[in-house]
Amino acid sequence: MKRILLLGAGRSSTSLIKYLIKKVEVYNWELVVGDYDQRLAQEKLPPKPGLKGIHFDVFNEEQKDKEIGEADIVISMLPASFHIHVAKSCLKFGKNLITASYVSDDLKELETAVKQKGLLFLMECGLDPGIDHMSAMKVINNIREEGHQLVNFETFTGGLIAPESEGNNPWKYKFTWNPRNVVMAGNGTVKFIQEGRLKYIPYHRLFRRTEIVEIPGYGLFEGYANRDSLKYLKVYGLENIRTLYRGTFRRPGYCRAWDVFVQLGATDDSYKMDGVENMTHRQFINSFLSYNPQDSVELKLAHYLSLDLEGEEMFKLRWLGLFDDEVIGLTEGTPAQILEHILKKKWTILPDDKDMIVMWHKFDFMDGDQLRKIHSYMVAKGMNSEDTAMAKTVGLPLGIAAELILNNKISVTGIKIPTTKEIYDPILKVLEEEGIKVVEKEMTC
Amino acid sequence: MKRILLLGAGRSSTSLIKYLIKKVEVYNWELVVGDYDQRLAQEKLPPKPGLKGIHFDVFNEEQKDKEIGEADIVISMLPASFHIHVAKSCLKFGKNLITASYVSDDLKELETAVKQKGLLFLMECGLDPGIDHMSAMKVINNIREEGHQLVNFETFTGGLIAPESEGNNPWKYKFTWNPRNVVMAGNGTVKFIQEGRLKYIPYHRLFRRTEIVEIPGYGLFEGYANRDSLKYLKVYGLENIRTLYRGTFRRPGYCRAWDVFVQLGATDDSYKMDGVENMTHRQFINSFLSYNPQDSVELKLAHYLSLDLEGEEMFKLRWLGLFDDEVIGLTEGTPAQILEHILKKKWTILPDDKDMIVMWHKFDFMDGDQLRKIHSYMVAKGMNSEDTAMAKTVGLPLGIAAELILNNKISVTGIKIPTTKEIYDPILKVLEEEGIKVVEKEMTC
Repeated sequence: MKRILLLGAGRSSTSLIKYLIKKVEVYNWELVVGDYDQRLAQEKLPPKPGLKGIHFDVFNEEQKDKEIGEADIVISMLPASFHIHVAKSCLKFGKNLITASYVSDDLKELETAVKQKGLLFLMECGLDPGIDHMSAMKVINNIREEGHQLVNFETFTGGLIAPESEGNNPWKYKFTWNPRNVVMAGNGTVKFIQEGRLKYIPYHRLFRRTEIVEIPGYGLFEGYANRDSLKYLKVYGLENIRTLYRGTFRRPGYCRAWDVFVQLGATDDSYKMDGVENMTHRQFINSFLSYNPQDSVELKLAHYLSLDLEGEEMFKLRWLGLFDDEVIGLTEGTPAQILEHILKKKWTILPDDKDMIVMWHKFDFMDGDQLRKIHSYMVAKGMNSEDTAMAKTVGLPLGIAAELILNNKISVTGIKIPTTKEIYDPILKVLEEEGIKVVEKEMTC
Repeated sequence: MKRILLLGAGRSSTSLIKYLIKKVEVYNWELVVGDYDQRLAQEKLPPKPGLKGIHFDVFNEEQKDKEIGEADIVISMLPASFHIHVAKSCLKFGKNLITASYVSDDLKELETAVKQKGLLFLMECGLDPGIDHMSAMKVINNIREEGHQLVNFETFTGGLIAPESEGNNPWKYKFTWNPRNVVMAGNGTVKFIQEGRLKYIPYHRLFRRTEIVEIPGYGLFEGYANRDSLKYLKVYGLENIRTLYRGTFRRPGYCRAWDVFVQLGATDDSYKMDGVENMTHRQFINSFLSYNPQDSVELKLAHYLSLDLEGEEMFKLRWLGLFDDEVIGLTEGTPAQILEHILKKKWTILPDDKDMIVMWHKFDFMDGDQLRKIHSYMVAKGMNSEDTAMAKTVGLPLGIAAELILNNKISVTGIKIPTTKEIYDPILKVLEEEGIKVVEKEMTC
């Protein structure tokens, strides 16, 4: 009887656990879900044989070794920085490992040892990274196999809310994932390749250099660049590509309004503000504006950033309550922490809200002298705030990978990400059966 | 026979050495100048008795202890991070120490020991920090002694070039001090107090929030805020002040043009650029602009940052040669390093160029119900690129302080900065005799 050990029973594990429960029944396996909060692990499991929720502390060496030693495969949904501790135990006891996190430098160092032991540590096997790798490499490898030359590749992913849950929210956005990552998004210099030239965008210009993309049936999206486009050169084997651009999707208008926070310095996380305890939303904004008691905060802001006082950006800020005399409700914080706290008041997902994941790739390639274009996209919607598209698209690839590995359908060893056909083909196939379909379309040029 | 040990014989020690040579003759003292480059130390000393230039290596413990042990006072012009090594030796052998650098955290830890041994470590005794402390505290203490209440304090210093050396340079600026500090100026968030409220300016907005100041006889200056206004609250005892603003002077128009570099990301020091070896000035600028082969780099830049194509900012950039097809001349570098290298081609001070130091304070205070204003300023010009105003204004306060301490005219002990009357009064008096005069004027309200 094979045993799966899943570490981490938080919100993003919901769909994964459901999928694994089905497989445990089919194959007569065992599933042990470990979480620091044992109740959380137990709540997600029906009282059936083969299912067990346990308290798990990754820093309890003895327990860690015992549980990993008794498992046949380990899936880690723990915070990325904890993976190394899990990985070392897996290496010690000769167990395969799957995660949805980026391959970190400390993990890379285990590569030779993992290979020597004939193990597979499959990383970056969630949504982004994960389904993005798989769906992009499927098209890229097809283009190559047909002897064509990929010249441009752009890829965007966004975690948004479904149109039916937008209501009157002018941002058409709520937090469906880690709010802090949303507030800090784009920090650092963006690098990408455009027509063979390396281009750089500093953070304070990022949200003004957007592009609009239409996805049939889902409307328009606005993309801004991600920090790390260049690292995909090697990962995807794209060294001679002319354009490589990786970005994040929001709904049109979001970026212009978000840029107000960037311009003010309200996303700065490098210092703690003074007098936070009694500070109101309005005072928070005012602390980034010059002193001028004759003018309202609204007027000063509009003038400072050349905004139309009755325009779309100001409307979005008003809707968030940023000009209200409401006390923030924190005792201390950096500008970024305070902004996050204010945003949560309006951007927290309600129980019945449906989230929506949108992924879109654009491939330009030369077929002889002829330029051809393929667009590929995937849209997934959640059911409610528990059964989210985010949890489904992150969790299912992990669950499917575990199933394939336990059934000996994947033979590669070492530390891998799902960029090879042997891995992505069966995963994409099962994802489609589960309702997560990547659509590929050749476009007219 | 008393002995002064001066460590560091670089450009900024020139005026200090000249002053000390005069004093050695008057008092029949000895002066030992130590530099890692012995020739540099010897070149600055005439062949007279009592003067000696030596090779000095701060990391040679034995030599350091020997020279400091034989001295009566030590002046350190070494890089700020080396002071702690000098200070520990001074403590060990019971010697007074003077520097022009900020009191660092590691030095602060010696405070009790310095006081116990009855020593004086006088720090921040150059120009800025140095003359700024002295000239400001003189006015602030006068206001207090007369029972008035200081409400606003603004202070600016700038190291510029004298009008007669400006030529056709539209920036009216050259490097007269560490070029890297000029390129990196303003990095980090600025904090200041305006009308009792803490205000924050992010780096990418800093050079657009300037103020213009006129100094009688010297024309107009443009001030932008420095990072660290708040730390002067405690240092000057200004806890109840309504406005506290510390800044840097340039000539009007500089900041708007410099902001172009900030907006582009050309002052970023966080990553190395690609392909620097063959990169031209023009390509450097273009790497921050979007790809568009139809438009010139000039047009793209003007459009991107809403500049007038024939306006003042574009003129300043053209004058620097930023649109030229000239190879940069570096093999690698961050944007900031590359920008510094390009700027040096036009902004390097010529042998006959005169630099100019400008310092300006503004004090608003309440005399009963009446608001009164005092402006105080100091302007110093250099003779040429060797005898600079910078070297004079940094070096003379140090030399005068050494003279006063050796003549037992200063009795305080501990780690001090020149904010008390006992220290600043005699130093300001001698500075005036040496031609560095701080003018104070009460203004009409």
